[in-house]
Amino acid sequence: MKILILNGPNLNMLGRREEALYGSEKFEKILEQLRTAYPQVELEYFQSNVEGEIVTRIQQLADEACQGLVINAGAYSHYSYAIHDALLIPQLIKVEVHLSNIYARESFRQKSVLSSACDGIIAGFGKESYRLAIDYIVQNSRRKVGF
Amino acid sequence: MKILILNGPNLNMLGRREEALYGSEKFEKILEQLRTAYPQVELEYFQSNVEGEIVTRIQQLADEACQGLVINAGAYSHYSYAIHDALLIPQLIKVEVHLSNIYARESFRQKSVLSSACDGIIAGFGKESYRLAIDYIVQNSRRKVGF
Amino acid sequence: MKILILNGPNLNMLGRREEALYGSEKFEKILEQLRTAYPQVELEYFQSNVEGEIVTRIQQLADEACQGLVINAGAYSHYSYAIHDALLIPQLIKVEVHLSNIYARESFRQKSVLSSACDGIIAGFGKESYRLAIDYIVQNSRRKVGF
Amino acid sequence: MKILILNGPNLNMLGRREEALYGSEKFEKILEQLRTAYPQVELEYFQSNVEGEIVTRIQQLADEACQGLVINAGAYSHYSYAIHDALLIPQLIKVEVHLSNIYARESFRQKSVLSSACDGIIAGFGKESYRLAIDYIVQNSRRKVGF
Amino acid sequence: MKILILNGPNLNMLGRREEALYGSEKFEKILEQLRTAYPQVELEYFQSNVEGEIVTRIQQLADEACQGLVINAGAYSHYSYAIHDALLIPQLIKVEVHLSNIYARESFRQKSVLSSACDGIIAGFGKESYRLAIDYIVQNSRRKVGF
Amino acid sequence: MKILILNGPNLNMLGRREEALYGSEKFEKILEQLRTAYPQVELEYFQSNVEGEIVTRIQQLADEACQGLVINAGAYSHYSYAIHDALLIPQLIKVEVHLSNIYARESFRQKSVLSSACDGIIAGFGKESYRLAIDYIVQNSRRKVGF
Amino acid sequence: MKILILNGPNLNMLGRREEALYGSEKFEKILEQLRTAYPQVELEYFQSNVEGEIVTRIQQLADEACQGLVINAGAYSHYSYAIHDALLIPQLIKVEVHLSNIYARESFRQKSVLSSACDGIIAGFGKESYRLAIDYIVQNSRRKVGF
Amino acid sequence: MKILILNGPNLNMLGRREEALYGSEKFEKILEQLRTAYPQVELEYFQSNVEGEIVTRIQQLADEACQGLVINAGAYSHYSYAIHDALLIPQLIKVEVHLSNIYARESFRQKSVLSSACDGIIAGFGKESYRLAIDYIVQNSRRKVGF
Amino acid sequence: MKILILNGPNLNMLGRREEALYGSEKFEKILEQLRTAYPQVELEYFQSNVEGEIVTRIQQLADEACQGLVINAGAYSHYSYAIHDALLIPQLIKVEVHLSNIYARESFRQKSVLSSACDGIIAGFGKESYRLAIDYIVQNSRRKVGF
Amino acid sequence: MKILILNGPNLNMLGRREEALYGSEKFEKILEQLRTAYPQVELEYFQSNVEGEIVTRIQQLADEACQGLVINAGAYSHYSYAIHDALLIPQLIKVEVHLSNIYARESFRQKSVLSSACDGIIAGFGKESYRLAIDYIVQNSRRKVGF
Amino acid sequence: MKILILNGPNLNMLGRREEALYGSEKFEKILEQLRTAYPQVELEYFQSNVEGEIVTRIQQLADEACQGLVINAGAYSHYSYAIHDALLIPQLIKVEVHLSNIYARESFRQKSVLSSACDGIIAGFGKESYRLAIDYIVQNSRRKVGF
Amino acid sequence: MKILILNGPNLNMLGRREEALYGSEKFEKILEQLRTAYPQVELEYFQSNVEGEIVTRIQQLADEACQGLVINAGAYSHYSYAIHDALLIPQLIKVEVHLSNIYARESFRQKSVLSSACDGIIAGFGKESYRLAIDYIVQNSRRKVGF
Repeated sequence: MKILILNGPNLNMLGRREEALYGSEKFEKILEQLRTAYPQVELEYFQSNVEGEIVTRIQQLADEACQGLVINAGAYSHYSYAIHDALLIPQLIKVEVHLSNIYARESFRQKSVLSSACDGIIAGFGKESYRLAIDYIVQNSRRKVGF
Repeated sequence: MKILILNGPNLNMLGRREEALYGSEKFEKILEQLRTAYPQVELEYFQSNVEGEIVTRIQQLADEACQGLVINAGAYSHYSYAIHDALLIPQLIKVEVHLSNIYARESFRQKSVLSSACDGIIAGFGKESYRLAIDYIVQNSRRKVGF
Repeated sequence: MKILILNGPNLNMLGRREEALYGSEKFEKILEQLRTAYPQVELEYFQSNVEGEIVTRIQQLADEACQGLVINAGAYSHYSYAIHDALLIPQLIKVEVHLSNIYARESFRQKSVLSSACDGIIAGFGKESYRLAIDYIVQNSRRKVGF
Repeated sequence: MKILILNGPNLNMLGRREEALYGSEKFEKILEQLRTAYPQVELEYFQSNVEGEIVTRIQQLADEACQGLVINAGAYSHYSYAIHDALLIPQLIKVEVHLSNIYARESFRQKSVLSSACDGIIAGFGKESYRLAIDYIVQNSRRKVGF
Repeated sequence: MKILILNGPNLNMLGRREEALYGSEKFEKILEQLRTAYPQVELEYFQSNVEGEIVTRIQQLADEACQGLVINAGAYSHYSYAIHDALLIPQLIKVEVHLSNIYARESFRQKSVLSSACDGIIAGFGKESYRLAIDYIVQNSRRKVGF
Repeated sequence: MKILILNGPNLNMLGRREEALYGSEKFEKILEQLRTAYPQVELEYFQSNVEGEIVTRIQQLADEACQGLVINAGAYSHYSYAIHDALLIPQLIKVEVHLSNIYARESFRQKSVLSSACDGIIAGFGKESYRLAIDYIVQNSRRKVGF
Repeated sequence: MKILILNGPNLNMLGRREEALYGSEKFEKILEQLRTAYPQVELEYFQSNVEGEIVTRIQQLADEACQGLVINAGAYSHYSYAIHDALLIPQLIKVEVHLSNIYARESFRQKSVLSSACDGIIAGFGKESYRLAIDYIVQNSRRKVGF
Repeated sequence: MKILILNGPNLNMLGRREEALYGSEKFEKILEQLRTAYPQVELEYFQSNVEGEIVTRIQQLADEACQGLVINAGAYSHYSYAIHDALLIPQLIKVEVHLSNIYARESFRQKSVLSSACDGIIAGFGKESYRLAIDYIVQNSRRKVGF
Repeated sequence: MKILILNGPNLNMLGRREEALYGSEKFEKILEQLRTAYPQVELEYFQSNVEGEIVTRIQQLADEACQGLVINAGAYSHYSYAIHDALLIPQLIKVEVHLSNIYARESFRQKSVLSSACDGIIAGFGKESYRLAIDYIVQNSRRKVGF
Repeated sequence: MKILILNGPNLNMLGRREEALYGSEKFEKILEQLRTAYPQVELEYFQSNVEGEIVTRIQQLADEACQGLVINAGAYSHYSYAIHDALLIPQLIKVEVHLSNIYARESFRQKSVLSSACDGIIAGFGKESYRLAIDYIVQNSRRKVGF
Repeated sequence: MKILILNGPNLNMLGRREEALYGSEKFEKILEQLRTAYPQVELEYFQSNVEGEIVTRIQQLADEACQGLVINAGAYSHYSYAIHDALLIPQLIKVEVHLSNIYARESFRQKSVLSSACDGIIAGFGKESYRLAIDYIVQNSRRKVGF
Repeated sequence: MKILILNGPNLNMLGRREEALYGSEKFEKILEQLRTAYPQVELEYFQSNVEGEIVTRIQQLADEACQGLVINAGAYSHYSYAIHDALLIPQLIKVEVHLSNIYARESFRQKSVLSSACDGIIAGFGKESYRLAIDYIVQNSRRKVGF
């Protein structure tokens, strides 16, 4: 089983960026923890600050044996219709995640243009947002109803 | 460990209401599954169609030994500032859940006035939204970081 | 044949409330007249000032042998998405009525969030709005085209 | 007793236009049924696609012995302030009707600029909208309270 | 010297329409007074309820020996971009007039889409609005500065 | 002389709710102080979290010998047109009060839909808002002009 | 007979300010021409750049024997509710004038908050706007109908 | 093969109207050129300034052997929902054209309410907009894919 | 103890201005009554129609021994950010008052830009608004909690 | 003669992306057909998912011997002011094309920020949109008027 | 060489007003520093809280030998179209300055209506905003390009 | 001392792009002049048309010995929240600059989403905007107050 974790702009700076808000761990470390927690899943990781590279990476999923996408597109979540359109292409489980509770922040962050192209959204739980998304995909792709 | 699941208006009709959207299981059955999945947690359940009763039930949490609240306020999510204000009172983990992806539906459903008073939001995963919320609370209240 | 007339907040004060606008008859008297006019119909009447009780009463219709609902949700018409959602559940003829011409009044009254969940709307004819609604249900549930 | 039924643009195409929405009967046939149902009423019929001709026809009512106007101005309902102003001139019962439930359709159709110049509005009941309007006028112009 | 007075919808009902607002004189009588007041001017009069006929009459001015246009387009003032576009064609003095003070009435009347295509606007002076408009054209077309 | 103090949702939690904003006294204690300050006034107190119960309590005033209403409808102030409509029914002095300065808080709190149905509004003075409201009613119902 | 001409900010710079738009004559010269044209009228002139001084001057009219006010409040026209309120006080004919066609300029100039407090508005005729306003007052205060 | 070219208000003034924007050729001449370019097509031409006549002409297409409609509704494009509704009736290829680039002009011109009822839109190419529309219909009605 | 009462534009015309709304007493008389009612307080009074003079007077409070400010800025309340900014400077109790219930009047009056810079607001009680404001300051500056 | 066809994000997935909407042909195949149809034209093709690369490619046209640009910027059409600004630089014929009728889709797609920087727009004709654009450039760059 | 520094409302309170935001120096001291830094420039200073006095002072520049204007209109920046209009009159270099970064503050401060009437804007650098403005004028009026 | 000058899309075309607006000098030449003017500063230059590359370059500043950033993000200024978020990461002086006065141009250019993440903004002075920004950083990083 394979899941792609796709992070957008400035998430490569995790651990060094507004720590009160985003925590002090680098994403590499979080990734390690996620891999330990779900040893049965191949967790691929892709990060880019470039909107078009994110579009391209999502498109490639149409040709890959991948069961799920966990996407945190950072600030692009709020205006990238290009990523929105790309998300409509591959047929797999797509979960939008956010570290912070975007609905409790600046008004521009309270609307994600990506949400309507995903299966669901998980926001506000820090790194746990990623774990819950993976957990959902793992449970759901096995075709049993979760519990 | 105790968690309150609080459902708002029309969720008592689950299984009989827009099944294509909300599924055909009654919430009582989902509750049973959740209790089976998390035997270590006391899952209390409260449902009301009355906004003020939901307000009152949330207020009572201020005096109860309860570690988490999983709230799906149904349509009240979109305009009940009374529930929003009640949510600010008790000090416990609060997770807003929705069965459907509210961000992919009618415009009035794309904004929840409760989100900013919760720790986070999980929407679009059907009954799994509840399980993920419980999972988060269970992992988090143990003070270890989840995985 | 059975029809439920469901009145929302402040309609229990009819006859004592802004008489120039709403008339000086109590609704009980109007009900009597309606029953006289349609002796073949069992006209049930329910009034509540509580949004959630209105929601509950509408839900119960899903299990009742009732051919039609005539609803005047009063001020809740303008913001109660909970009632809107409840109206989507029972499968019967649903007619929204208003005593006054809500489109000729304050701007907040010019939009009903319930209309899209009903078959049609009749507004501005005083108590006649109720009679026309009943007339429609009576004619229509007989499966002949009305005239 | 005389009532004018006034239809606006594209209602001359009834029966050939979006039949799922508007039904497959021509208006001439509906008119016949209405005349059968209300033999005591002289039902005059006027249809025009031209906004100004509708204005003129309404103005003429100021000089005619006519007890009521049933108007379905079609798309003009949503922007014709000229018709709105004309409706303010003649002193008779004015009922706005719509075949479909305009409040459940495209946003531009959810607002009628004519409603505030009419006594009331009946929408969403197909040809029955016309019958109910006539019924109201008939009952009301007799000066007895309807039932 | 020739001036065209062009009246739009419902102005043919002057004297019989909302008299408190518009006065009780018919426009024919006002026209007579204007002709008496300005005997040196040929005052042509055109009224139509049909937007397109107003457009056509304005277009014809491009080929006529006419020094000025006094236009009161009634309700069309508030949405007829077709008349707006027509007004851009003929090269003569164009004055928009209104009997009532449109800026002190319903919000839809507070914006005229024609104003930007006219030389100026005179509103709120009853029939005097027409006389002032004529006076301006008479004074101005003589190429002396008015006083 | 009798005055009803009517508190809406979450005001039953005063003293335990956002103390920095609302103070640490329970309303019962404030009530006691008010009664001491105005011994000549019978101060009745009603609190409910349920919108419809507030509507009902206000309606009852139409039949009671009560000189004034002091209402703090909490979050309902910002969207309850049902309470707004109820306030129009009883004929007595009605004063809207708020503990905090609602105009200096979140944007949703800066508009009260109840204000237009009250005689006046007093906001921002903590418990003193209630005292000033009572003071106004006491002075005013005596028919002498206050000072 | 006395009329006050009241000019607001920057109109003291007429003749030196955007000449293409406002012309090259100083207002003093225009005033002279107006006095020559209406020798029977005492034309008083007041100009101020200070909003409050304009308010005060308008208030004084309540105690003066003055038949009319011709006001061009310049940029204050677009936001001074203080001047709007002042205009409601004195009982005389009030005409708002503008040199340019404000409805054909920047969007902020297309709305005057003063119009609803005046009898009428004349805009777009350069200095002729003033003459027409005076002409209206002269004709109207004589109690004969103008022509 | 037959195509109807339908022009709306003020297009009968082409060649005499804002030449810098619309060119100096009359439409009759353009029509001639189009007929020369597509000799195999019967190009019918209809122009009207009257909204309702345009509605009627479009309705007639439902009964005609016509393969395509090329419509330039002029200013009506921006507000005529009556024409929009008419366009939904006949089943043929419908192309909206504009001489100028409406998206680079005044804001009221940047939205056409007709576009959603047409197959496509071609704007900004002067008379070539018409030729391209015809070319599309010719190529497409032949059931071969164009090139 | 000293309190400054600061009145803005047109309040110098009290008693002569829209008496139905504002009463028929001059403010000087009201002031007298207030001084009689609070003999222990030095009530200074300042009125100006000039926004900048109001700004200056507020600034001076920063250097004065004054316990409270009662401000009714009239129409400036609705747009004067200059007064808003001035109010932030002196450290004393600041109460915004209005004679009328501004929330029940024209929409432009329903928002005060000053409220967020004051401790609280009292509106709708006529001259009593001033007395209540003074009463609050008197009670509160004594450091005992009012009653 | 040379024309650049520039496609934006997700157009590289044509034939595999929402086929009902966009067709099942790859763009490479469409390109071939276009080259066959216009053998006299050198059709260069550029596609990128990266906004900045599209900007750069457009800038390069300033230095190239190229007569026309056919641009379909995909989702970037709706928010990329960077591409808008780039389009203002090279001096050649610029045609914006869309496969689908963007004005009949989601609201975010109904506005292109690029249109005002192009000569014209062609939308809704599938691959024919490209052919018509090329046809226009070919006819127009020859300096003869097309037909 | 002469430059006028013009400060608006509340800037006379600098050093005593929200020091965290605006610093603790009085403007007189800043002025001294600026004069020391630019000994070759005659720096005139004008401050007023009165909008109209600022208008007048700007108008006077039309007759003065002054090379530049540095204007910080304080709160008037956000609504004074009177100052905006005045700024259009004198022909000299006009620089708008702000001490704080107005774009990072309350929404009403994020828009200056004066900016479009100035050459440029410098905001957010404390007293340095003034120095940079002077520096620009000095460099630029010398007709050499700065460096 | 080191300062990074970061230019966004289309600024690499300076000198060849809308010269009336942006001047005819290439940025390389401007850079040379800036280096001559500030020989003590190491001026690094980075330009990219790619939003993500700008994000990356800003992130790198977090690890570099750099005292200031002068950023002109071109069109990205108006919608790139990704750049906004990146700007929050490095701790150095950040100045937003624009060649033209963006507040006097199209409405989409009048709002920069980057301003709130910078220390200040300098706009409208052509290449001088850059020099002033550098001057500010140079003066300020020396810890003496500028002059």
